[in-house]
Amino acid sequence: MERHLVISSDCHAGLPPERYRDYVDPRYREIFDVALPIQIETARQMARKFLIDEINEEWRKGREEALAGAWDSDVRNRVLDADGIAGEVIFPDGITELNMPPFGAGIGMPTGEEINPELQWAGAIAHNRWLAEFCAMAPERRAGVACAPICWDDVDFSVEQIRWARENGLAGILIPSRWEKRPPYHDPRYDPIWEVCQDLGMVVHFHSGSAPMDDYGDHTGMMGIYISEVVWWSARPLWFLIWGGVFERFPDLRVAITESTCVWVPETLQLLDFRYEETHYAAKLGDYRSHLSMKPSDYFRRNVFLGASCMPRREAEIRHQIGVGSIMWGSDYPHPEGSWPVTREQMVETFKGLPEDEVAAMLGGNAVRLYGFDEEKLAPLVARIGPEKSLFA
Amino acid sequence: MERHLVISSDCHAGLPPERYRDYVDPRYREIFDVALPIQIETARQMARKFLIDEINEEWRKGREEALAGAWDSDVRNRVLDADGIAGEVIFPDGITELNMPPFGAGIGMPTGEEINPELQWAGAIAHNRWLAEFCAMAPERRAGVACAPICWDDVDFSVEQIRWARENGLAGILIPSRWEKRPPYHDPRYDPIWEVCQDLGMVVHFHSGSAPMDDYGDHTGMMGIYISEVVWWSARPLWFLIWGGVFERFPDLRVAITESTCVWVPETLQLLDFRYEETHYAAKLGDYRSHLSMKPSDYFRRNVFLGASCMPRREAEIRHQIGVGSIMWGSDYPHPEGSWPVTREQMVETFKGLPEDEVAAMLGGNAVRLYGFDEEKLAPLVARIGPEKSLFA
Repeated sequence: MERHLVISSDCHAGLPPERYRDYVDPRYREIFDVALPIQIETARQMARKFLIDEINEEWRKGREEALAGAWDSDVRNRVLDADGIAGEVIFPDGITELNMPPFGAGIGMPTGEEINPELQWAGAIAHNRWLAEFCAMAPERRAGVACAPICWDDVDFSVEQIRWARENGLAGILIPSRWEKRPPYHDPRYDPIWEVCQDLGMVVHFHSGSAPMDDYGDHTGMMGIYISEVVWWSARPLWFLIWGGVFERFPDLRVAITESTCVWVPETLQLLDFRYEETHYAAKLGDYRSHLSMKPSDYFRRNVFLGASCMPRREAEIRHQIGVGSIMWGSDYPHPEGSWPVTREQMVETFKGLPEDEVAAMLGGNAVRLYGFDEEKLAPLVARIGPEKSLFA
Repeated sequence: MERHLVISSDCHAGLPPERYRDYVDPRYREIFDVALPIQIETARQMARKFLIDEINEEWRKGREEALAGAWDSDVRNRVLDADGIAGEVIFPDGITELNMPPFGAGIGMPTGEEINPELQWAGAIAHNRWLAEFCAMAPERRAGVACAPICWDDVDFSVEQIRWARENGLAGILIPSRWEKRPPYHDPRYDPIWEVCQDLGMVVHFHSGSAPMDDYGDHTGMMGIYISEVVWWSARPLWFLIWGGVFERFPDLRVAITESTCVWVPETLQLLDFRYEETHYAAKLGDYRSHLSMKPSDYFRRNVFLGASCMPRREAEIRHQIGVGSIMWGSDYPHPEGSWPVTREQMVETFKGLPEDEVAAMLGGNAVRLYGFDEEKLAPLVARIGPEKSLFA
């Protein structure tokens, strides 16, 4: 092979809000019609406040067609081809504030008291139905991630939906990063969910986005605060899963933490292992480790993957501390902070000069293994659109 | 000078609980008497659950006299002499669970709805009165940190107490790391507090300890979760202060983040600066930076210090990325996770072979400058007890 097989571990897709109507269960359509203009207006206000309409509009100028790849299968494949991307992992919220699933079921997936669990699930199911169709249009290229607000009480219902998603060709679930007042993920109530994900090979995802915005208030600097800590909030479930023994009980469960940088990994693993192995500093805290048969970094190496969206060079340089086998490069298409449409240049900037097998693993190999992409089926496409290995030499 | 002037930026002192009675305002003594056995029993239960009585008791065996230095001035000076420590910064909670100020006014300083603000302040004031006396017994050696639960509504009262603390020889305030449902520290309501601290040179402290324990539940691994994130919670106020423009408005305000490791600093500063300087990734979030005249790391270098308790070698090795001028070594006496009674050995292990002037800054010079210790007055003591510089060569 002269070219790299590239999988983007972080892409986004979603319908224009009104088009979700057809996918919402009929019993929720009436409320969908009422909620739709509110959702659109809220998103507009949000855009005005945080996302700054003008900048987005400026950035989008001349890219309207390519952005329609957020929901148009053919356009999407052309954009990915041009970027050299053979396969992709698909999260919700296509064009940031314009393609969110209904009823708060998208990336942020709030779990507060303002949320109606039944409706949030209805929104998730609508998106998942559409996503299953969308992935089926190019199944060898697309690993769809189902929305799954699993924090609510009906665990059996969550399990049922996860089974549905698998049966309909989806590859994993996106769950809330922040449980707010709901039980955290080391609570045994979630065990049936981890079990079904393990058994069906459904990858469990945390994707950056949610943060305690109430804390930030209306201050000018609030988005500075947000971007200073947002990735911490999507990495945080990790230590609940590790110390909670979830990976001990479900050794084949796979978790991906996406668009949350990789830079915290070496220090976090060092800290966790230190706390596990060093008794002097933590002795006064009693036995919190004998239920674990391995040290925290062993679980990490076995159970955890990183969706490394727009990975910068300095992370590639510490790849061995992060874990070459855990890193999955991502383009974040069609988000404006992503690498599209200068993906090839950015890839090369990040990986140039590194050992070819390591680059191959981070650009695609790890994702192939985790999501079960079929390399043989993708080979002709890669031969046509993949970035040439010589570019990275 | 043949010897290093050593200041421990993190020591603890407190009275046995019943002895706080004399320092509590008479109008709260009745309730103090009712609360005392409850506080003692709660602390005992906490010790049984988290701190593991047996381990603590084992560790304390044969150290009873030296541990009485938590409240006994002469004993304390002897312990510090033996450790080679000339001066110290004194936080509450002497022997972890046995010397906490009354009414929840100690290190953890909760701010939840279960707390009565008036009583918490009464406990803080009692501790501060005692601490002022205690520091006055060896004023050249002791920089006392007053307890200040500033999150409540009566900001004027907080300001008054800070003035009292300064007038009575204390050097800074300890404030809650977690505001819970109270306003975060970028809220302008706190400005009079930052102003008085700036004007009087009172250092504002965040000390690790508080964390959202409710999230951890009763799981065996809960203390693993706790120690995986507790230092993040005491560092978190930093980005509220930076992006909130507090350091912009109060350029002479000084903040110390204590016993929270230093390892997060390089990456955090890199991230904050990146978010400040790089417009592509954050453009869609609008203008959150034009109210700041400097980049985040500039505020950090100017306004922020680190109480580096039991600093490990690997942090000393990245001292330039952390900031040699920000690091203040600490012993954490009399806590069992501290370096006492093998402080000299640990210091040498951490700093051996590094440039002498840098070691001097981290061991004492930075703290001298921040807290205003009088080097001349301490010189005879240093000549007698300070660790010989040759040990570090």
